[in-house]
Amino acid sequence: MLVVMKNDATEVQVQAVIREIESWGYRGIPIPGAQRTAVCIVDNTGPVEDSRLLSLDGVKEAIRVTKPYKLVSRETHPQSTIIAIGDIKIGGEEPVIMAGPCAVESEEQALTIAHLVKQYGAQIFRGGAFKPRTSPYSFQGLGEEGLKILKKVRSETGLLIVTEATDHTNIEIVEQYGDIIQIGARNMQNYSLLRRAGRASKPILLKRGFAATIGELLMSAEYIMSEGSTQVILCERGIRTFADNTRSTLDLSAIPSIKEVSHLPVVVDPSHAAGRREYVIPLSKGAIAVGADGLLVEVHHDPSHALSDGMQSLYPEQFEKLMREIESLRR
Amino acid sequence: MLVVMKNDATEVQVQAVIREIESWGYRGIPIPGAQRTAVCIVDNTGPVEDSRLLSLDGVKEAIRVTKPYKLVSRETHPQSTIIAIGDIKIGGEEPVIMAGPCAVESEEQALTIAHLVKQYGAQIFRGGAFKPRTSPYSFQGLGEEGLKILKKVRSETGLLIVTEATDHTNIEIVEQYGDIIQIGARNMQNYSLLRRAGRASKPILLKRGFAATIGELLMSAEYIMSEGSTQVILCERGIRTFADNTRSTLDLSAIPSIKEVSHLPVVVDPSHAAGRREYVIPLSKGAIAVGADGLLVEVHHDPSHALSDGMQSLYPEQFEKLMREIESLRR
Amino acid sequence: MLVVMKNDATEVQVQAVIREIESWGYRGIPIPGAQRTAVCIVDNTGPVEDSRLLSLDGVKEAIRVTKPYKLVSRETHPQSTIIAIGDIKIGGEEPVIMAGPCAVESEEQALTIAHLVKQYGAQIFRGGAFKPRTSPYSFQGLGEEGLKILKKVRSETGLLIVTEATDHTNIEIVEQYGDIIQIGARNMQNYSLLRRAGRASKPILLKRGFAATIGELLMSAEYIMSEGSTQVILCERGIRTFADNTRSTLDLSAIPSIKEVSHLPVVVDPSHAAGRREYVIPLSKGAIAVGADGLLVEVHHDPSHALSDGMQSLYPEQFEKLMREIESLRR
Amino acid sequence: MLVVMKNDATEVQVQAVIREIESWGYRGIPIPGAQRTAVCIVDNTGPVEDSRLLSLDGVKEAIRVTKPYKLVSRETHPQSTIIAIGDIKIGGEEPVIMAGPCAVESEEQALTIAHLVKQYGAQIFRGGAFKPRTSPYSFQGLGEEGLKILKKVRSETGLLIVTEATDHTNIEIVEQYGDIIQIGARNMQNYSLLRRAGRASKPILLKRGFAATIGELLMSAEYIMSEGSTQVILCERGIRTFADNTRSTLDLSAIPSIKEVSHLPVVVDPSHAAGRREYVIPLSKGAIAVGADGLLVEVHHDPSHALSDGMQSLYPEQFEKLMREIESLRR
Repeated sequence: MLVVMKNDATEVQVQAVIREIESWGYRGIPIPGAQRTAVCIVDNTGPVEDSRLLSLDGVKEAIRVTKPYKLVSRETHPQSTIIAIGDIKIGGEEPVIMAGPCAVESEEQALTIAHLVKQYGAQIFRGGAFKPRTSPYSFQGLGEEGLKILKKVRSETGLLIVTEATDHTNIEIVEQYGDIIQIGARNMQNYSLLRRAGRASKPILLKRGFAATIGELLMSAEYIMSEGSTQVILCERGIRTFADNTRSTLDLSAIPSIKEVSHLPVVVDPSHAAGRREYVIPLSKGAIAVGADGLLVEVHHDPSHALSDGMQSLYPEQFEKLMREIESLRR
Repeated sequence: MLVVMKNDATEVQVQAVIREIESWGYRGIPIPGAQRTAVCIVDNTGPVEDSRLLSLDGVKEAIRVTKPYKLVSRETHPQSTIIAIGDIKIGGEEPVIMAGPCAVESEEQALTIAHLVKQYGAQIFRGGAFKPRTSPYSFQGLGEEGLKILKKVRSETGLLIVTEATDHTNIEIVEQYGDIIQIGARNMQNYSLLRRAGRASKPILLKRGFAATIGELLMSAEYIMSEGSTQVILCERGIRTFADNTRSTLDLSAIPSIKEVSHLPVVVDPSHAAGRREYVIPLSKGAIAVGADGLLVEVHHDPSHALSDGMQSLYPEQFEKLMREIESLRR
Repeated sequence: MLVVMKNDATEVQVQAVIREIESWGYRGIPIPGAQRTAVCIVDNTGPVEDSRLLSLDGVKEAIRVTKPYKLVSRETHPQSTIIAIGDIKIGGEEPVIMAGPCAVESEEQALTIAHLVKQYGAQIFRGGAFKPRTSPYSFQGLGEEGLKILKKVRSETGLLIVTEATDHTNIEIVEQYGDIIQIGARNMQNYSLLRRAGRASKPILLKRGFAATIGELLMSAEYIMSEGSTQVILCERGIRTFADNTRSTLDLSAIPSIKEVSHLPVVVDPSHAAGRREYVIPLSKGAIAVGADGLLVEVHHDPSHALSDGMQSLYPEQFEKLMREIESLRR
Repeated sequence: MLVVMKNDATEVQVQAVIREIESWGYRGIPIPGAQRTAVCIVDNTGPVEDSRLLSLDGVKEAIRVTKPYKLVSRETHPQSTIIAIGDIKIGGEEPVIMAGPCAVESEEQALTIAHLVKQYGAQIFRGGAFKPRTSPYSFQGLGEEGLKILKKVRSETGLLIVTEATDHTNIEIVEQYGDIIQIGARNMQNYSLLRRAGRASKPILLKRGFAATIGELLMSAEYIMSEGSTQVILCERGIRTFADNTRSTLDLSAIPSIKEVSHLPVVVDPSHAAGRREYVIPLSKGAIAVGADGLLVEVHHDPSHALSDGMQSLYPEQFEKLMREIESLRR
């Protein structure tokens, strides 16, 4: 960390900063400049709380030089993590496609869609049994009944299951029934849920919050990994901006940004970002071309009767087209 | 709701929209225009799921005319809600000042600050025992020990206590020890926690999420109220934008916007928004002038040794100045 | 346009709205709803100024149904525009690659880079002679001398030239020397410059402003086309958001969004969006996969001595790699 | 500037950075840390172009310690600037109120409104003769005829005139007719217009761009001042965010942020930020309480027939109320 002094800071103030740093067991080296002095902190092994320094007289700014995350960092773990579940490898050579409806609505609906997406090449079935909805009056998912349907989907189709846990109570059963536990964007900083997820026996798919920086997403993954988990999949799903052409602005630069600093795999959810099925195919192709390790796509055999997010769900024939186009991109 | 058809929509498509609307028990009235037709939904009493309509062929857009919230709405409850706790009235004539450290660090620290803020005119003491921190390695609060200190603060000073609950387990004890239960910005859409908060016996202070619209903040308050609570205080604390002069951009227009559509009281937290104590006094004055029902301000007797957020905490003498300036604004 | 009345609006207020609409020569059709009345405007051929309606008593909102642009709209011009300059076709089957340095610095620099990008497959040379810089003390470009160098680049390499005009005086000479006139992001709403550009004899490349919606970008293109030009190329170059991993957030959803409503070709500038060369190759591939009609990429043979934007300029060997990877994406 | 090396940077790479710095005539001092080395640049008097350094092998980041602006900076000019025009002092003890319609529509309209706002206490009349409009088909202002009307307003009422110049041609006559030349938000980075404004004989009111940081606003003011002007008034008018309750999000923290680093006066335009007259009074009071040096408010005697922005214009009686409430805040 570099502590920048105000340009009228006195020598006494600089010395007070150095003493404070020394009181923590580190060294502070003064760097006199033409206009102002800075003090460089050395010998520290972890991050330093800047708030104390910033409160000292004469201090203008404290600039972090080292990033605060460890377990998620590529500096500490240079090789990319590959998460293997049965035959499926997330983070490997081939992108992994997770497809299905926003919400599990009935056994018939889930099985119909599952057979279709399996046929066109998806490896993992997505579908929510517990739905976080903006309104308390909207459909909130089938709960455990939905999980039982997902179990049947797996046994009938062989597809793996990714499904969301929204709180302490349902994460227990999601862990039993699912193959990957999803933590949604709204819960990205629900630290208590993250800690519990870090003790789960299954991989975690962590979605980026609407307003989270890459650094914050990685710190949330750090919460999970700090409890012992090594299997975290990150997911870009769009951020809040002023732009009104899509529901959220899909930030595909997140893929190279994350891969530069972290070893964890990253997938993209183009459906929630776009909010409209017309944009899902082009954005999916963009995500794969940018280097995403997979996609999380909404597909519904009858979107006009979907209980949620029908507008952004692909028709099965569109999903087939998507799979073909991704395949030709990949060759 | 108004369903706007594409300009090449066929009559058959328009009729399909009308039949869909009728299948829900409402009426759909076609409105032919020069360039395109729209269908107006009437006879519905609550919100309509637009996703089904948007999925029908020929449909371009669905435009909501009625807002989706009820219990928080001023249309259903025209008088402003006043939350009375003992002698304190939040939402009444006088703004209510909640002041104290970011985190409770020790009995001595809490009591020292509490006596100071009480002396300068605060009515409620703020201080966290459970701290949601971006990093798992940062100080996370004293937990129940912190709550016991807060209880002592109340008995020694007479100040009421507002303190944060971050999950299902700690909300139980926060409800026992505190006078107002705070739900933080990161948990604004933790619906399971909101529902539990709605069953609490104490008023809830709900902070706006970093990326939440006013509509979403109100829907989260609706979650709380839908469980029976009538005592919700909203809190503007800054939103995420590109602007880099403050940690978040304080959106003071939220005050008149909320008061226009909702009867709930609104307070402002200038400390977290600004991220720097230099801006806390001017932003506090702005908040009161705009019409906020109160402030949530960080004060520390020794910010340079605060365990969190020292940079944005007022010195006691600054808090005294703030109280004097607000007083003179009010006269 | 749909005029939504407040839910306590009186019949007299509804009638006043209808009379106002009739005074403009249109018809207003009242649509009574369960909670409120709306008035639909029909028979208008162009956009209606909503401000008058919004000022009438009892009016809650005015909702536009028809978009305000005409000449840029795909509704009025269903076929995609292809801009042919010599053998190059922008908006056709093949993406067009425009590459070169941020600024023309010397004849030697420009020719060196031009020969390299030509060799690897670029069709158009980019390089600024007039540079809009945030600071008045930064290098502002070589001016007309730079344009003369660009002319030499064209005659020596056969590459077409795209270069920026920043005001009324330099657009005259940019028009003489260049093949495509660039209007930069900061000038996207410099309407006087847009009008002048619309009277130029050369195609215009219009960059999206940092904070412009797709609708505003299209309205700025409409300014150009309203002066007679039919040759406008749009350019996505990133928008301002809270995200701090790139300089701007590249909004690749802009491509399908623009193509849905407009017939104009769209290219992408990944260099300015990313701000770092490490992300330029993945974002370029993403842009092509999403459907962009071309790229505007910064390349410099010696980025560490570039007078501006060295950090985001590709090394020639990286540009070669980019061209190869795009080629393999395309097959 | 501090150059941070990657943690695997070699000694040879560090030496190359130092030599590069020395080649500019400055000194580079290496600061070895526990994890990585940084190099501090000293002896430079102005800003350093970081792009060259960032392009050297082994360099991770370059961190600016000194801000790039000079003439606008409070460090170089500690006393706050007061701009005196006749008896009016902008930046002095009293806030200055500029009020009037968005656009000058007719002599009758302008004089009617001017007499009203004068009566209630405004000191400066605002009204546009040249209007930058998003659509080329919207009313663009009366041009020079509008300026003649403004001249008449001044001679009849004694109010000073602030009016916008949008390009090189109209700034000449705006300078003749007006007392303060406004540069609008869309032109905040129209550097050619800024330079011309800096040579004008009248004070300049510079509006913050929709997506401009405080640093960029100050750099644009620096452009004006670098041409010789010492009379620049800054204006906060709202920034683009995801929030949808107002047209733009008014960033009142801009006031203390600007005043901390610059000596220039700052006024606030609550009308364009809010987009709705209901919020103009509270936001105006907030602006004054935060410390703004004045307001730019839209007032119209007949908003429902205004040719632009009727929705956000105050009725005269609302303006009277605003003036009374500000007066009582001030006491």
